[in-house]
Amino acid sequence: MSAHTDMSAHTTGCILWFTGLSGAGKSTLAEFLTPLLRELGLKVELLDGDEVRENLSKGLGFSKEDRDTNVRRIGFVANLLARNGVIAISAAISPYRSIRDEIRSRSQAPFIEIHVAAPLATVEERDTKGLYAKARAGLLKQFTGISDPYEEPLHPELTLHTDRESIEESATKVLLYLESKHLIPQGSSARARG
Amino acid sequence: MSAHTDMSAHTTGCILWFTGLSGAGKSTLAEFLTPLLRELGLKVELLDGDEVRENLSKGLGFSKEDRDTNVRRIGFVANLLARNGVIAISAAISPYRSIRDEIRSRSQAPFIEIHVAAPLATVEERDTKGLYAKARAGLLKQFTGISDPYEEPLHPELTLHTDRESIEESATKVLLYLESKHLIPQGSSARARG
Repeated sequence: MSAHTDMSAHTTGCILWFTGLSGAGKSTLAEFLTPLLRELGLKVELLDGDEVRENLSKGLGFSKEDRDTNVRRIGFVANLLARNGVIAISAAISPYRSIRDEIRSRSQAPFIEIHVAAPLATVEERDTKGLYAKARAGLLKQFTGISDPYEEPLHPELTLHTDRESIEESATKVLLYLESKHLIPQGSSARARG
Repeated sequence: MSAHTDMSAHTTGCILWFTGLSGAGKSTLAEFLTPLLRELGLKVELLDGDEVRENLSKGLGFSKEDRDTNVRRIGFVANLLARNGVIAISAAISPYRSIRDEIRSRSQAPFIEIHVAAPLATVEERDTKGLYAKARAGLLKQFTGISDPYEEPLHPELTLHTDRESIEESATKVLLYLESKHLIPQGSSARARG
């Protein structure tokens, strides 16, 4: 069965909701998966933090209320896309459990919560963007994990241990899960292992 | 050829951008067209003023800056949908020409600007929601057409004279245009006259 044949059979759409600390690997994974899914002929939109903040949430800050508003907007747009057959990927920190649950309950397509679960110690040690050092020094207020809470998912569809898995391993887990739910063609997961 | 066969051939997506004064008939037309296009097996999303204001633009007012932000957000979401094969319909007043042109220039799918051109005298006389009376009385500030500008499109793809056309006539014009651009199956326009 060709990818083209599969494509028309797989226009269900779903929401891949990555959540986790800054630096845990959400965007990296989302950016790894997006072209890979597109090569399969699937429709994919990555709603990443910066583009969304620029286009949907300019002017919002990092208070709980503003974060909730930003995350709700991503959820609203993701749902519009997913119910039209698109795999909508969010890679926002989305630190609050209640808002993630609210978006799940409103979703009209499968909502797949993926906890990108590198522990704080690991992401702080890596500190790829130097943000944790700034947050510890008090230069960044309301920084998730340091001066602002991160509420782990209680029942995520997937947990990715990006501190001890390669990106290919984590991506394969996502693809195997999507295959098991018939949201992508069977055999797609072989792609991530290239 | 069945509607089902056509559907797969018509997943181009486009933006139907209705613009015009309050009461001109934008939402009425959009709400008339949406189920009709869905019955043809097409994917359609109506981004109407109230739902968008609630979900994407809560807190924004009616200053030029806030209106521009609201309209830009609708344009951003419409483009995400349209480039994934959805007919995205906007029914916001969108009074400023430069912002409409900006959205057109950013659109990655056909952008069809539809001027819903009932004259002010007509919509003010109808005043279906009583808003014009309030605006004339000074109870509504920044009301488009009364105390705030409306900039007519200079080169819209379509102009609908809803003051002297029936809704079926206006809708048929839209469908004939979409047929002529091969954005919907040939023969679809017969539906509106149904």
